[in-house]
Amino acid sequence: DLVAGVCTAFAPPLLAGKRVVITAGPTREALDPVRYLSNHSSGKMGFALAEAARLAGAEVVLITGPVALESPKGVRRVDVTSAQSMYEAVHREVAGSDLFIACAAVADYRPAEVQPHKIKKDASLEQDSMQITLVRNPDIVASVAALADKPFVVGFAAETRDLLSYADDKRRRKGLDLVVANDVAATGIGFNSDENAVTVLGENLEQAFTQASKSIVAGSLIELFAQQMGAGER
Amino acid sequence: DLVAGVCTAFAPPLLAGKRVVITAGPTREALDPVRYLSNHSSGKMGFALAEAARLAGAEVVLITGPVALESPKGVRRVDVTSAQSMYEAVHREVAGSDLFIACAAVADYRPAEVQPHKIKKDASLEQDSMQITLVRNPDIVASVAALADKPFVVGFAAETRDLLSYADDKRRRKGLDLVVANDVAATGIGFNSDENAVTVLGENLEQAFTQASKSIVAGSLIELFAQQMGAGER
Repeated sequence: DLVAGVCTAFAPPLLAGKRVVITAGPTREALDPVRYLSNHSSGKMGFALAEAARLAGAEVVLITGPVALESPKGVRRVDVTSAQSMYEAVHREVAGSDLFIACAAVADYRPAEVQPHKIKKDASLEQDSMQITLVRNPDIVASVAALADKPFVVGFAAETRDLLSYADDKRRRKGLDLVVANDVAATGIGFNSDENAVTVLGENLEQAFTQASKSIVAGSLIELFAQQMGAGER
Repeated sequence: DLVAGVCTAFAPPLLAGKRVVITAGPTREALDPVRYLSNHSSGKMGFALAEAARLAGAEVVLITGPVALESPKGVRRVDVTSAQSMYEAVHREVAGSDLFIACAAVADYRPAEVQPHKIKKDASLEQDSMQITLVRNPDIVASVAALADKPFVVGFAAETRDLLSYADDKRRRKGLDLVVANDVAATGIGFNSDENAVTVLGENLEQAFTQASKSIVAGSLIELFAQQMGAGER
């Protein structure tokens, strides 16, 4: 807080006058009113980015899946559940924004059908197995990168192996300006942890951030994004 | 606390000398290191039952899936993730117990295979749909009810329709002493809510508990279970 205070007092706010939209947390894809498909994202990294962007002077909208976190001060929070509802919230908020950071762990697939009532096991004969058909969710970060008047777009790649090659492939395929590669198989960092270590990849950029608290990593990332989007020059 | 204190001081503890095993919360069934199948249980009802059983003088073991709750005082807590790990923990703890309350929302099915690495979309051509094969999990409450030296067994039935008939069918089919029927489609009660309203069904019993805080409902349920298991008479 002292550091934040000093920065606010003496440094020109890096993202003053900028509008930043950030997604965070997991999505939940309903199978029926009781069951869902989800993932291990805690939302901590996205929330830390929202706080860091706010401290850097930006107007911040944080679109988040279900998480157990308090909203950072001064940030407008939009709560969503499914990938489809996150997609819709993003496209309502992203117009006129300068920076979009897709930090949420969005489910790629959802159940093809959502049952209106709890699915019952066959009452007469309990089945030993069952099949669920999943269909693709809209690709949120790619859909923003494809907008004619797109903001600077940063994606996250959470991988358990071949981290940098998968991440860079994602960056190219989806037309992202930058991708943050996050090794979620490493212990002590990533999902649910309070610390993280990431590598940012761009067209002519590869910058590693060593393990630190998610707030510290978030501060460094926001500084890099601001620099890469040429925020100071506009 | 005043009421609890008065009860402790003047009433003979209903479950003194009894060992009670309670399951709570959801289970998570991994698809890969990132994704899982789960359900909306918050664990609040199971935790309230553990606290009420402890206040009634029992030795309490609380076996819980992933929840964001503090352990009740004086209760031994065992954390598990999947239905299979909950099944194993229950069978380690249930021997010699007097009362088993299966309040957890256990996943009936789990993915047939757990991928060791994050499942990748087909890199060349993103598939529009995919199939997941699920296999049955062990039935924890039925497996306890089938033990030769079984405790008094109480199950929960969380339903979204035809509540009492589904619940009573579950009681008979699984050999439970009592079943607690819980309408999770009603607003203001059930999953994630702080209140609940339930109906307990037994061979010659149907007793409704009107909407109240989960602590109050838990206290009434523990009293009924103690009475039904003839705890006072032993």
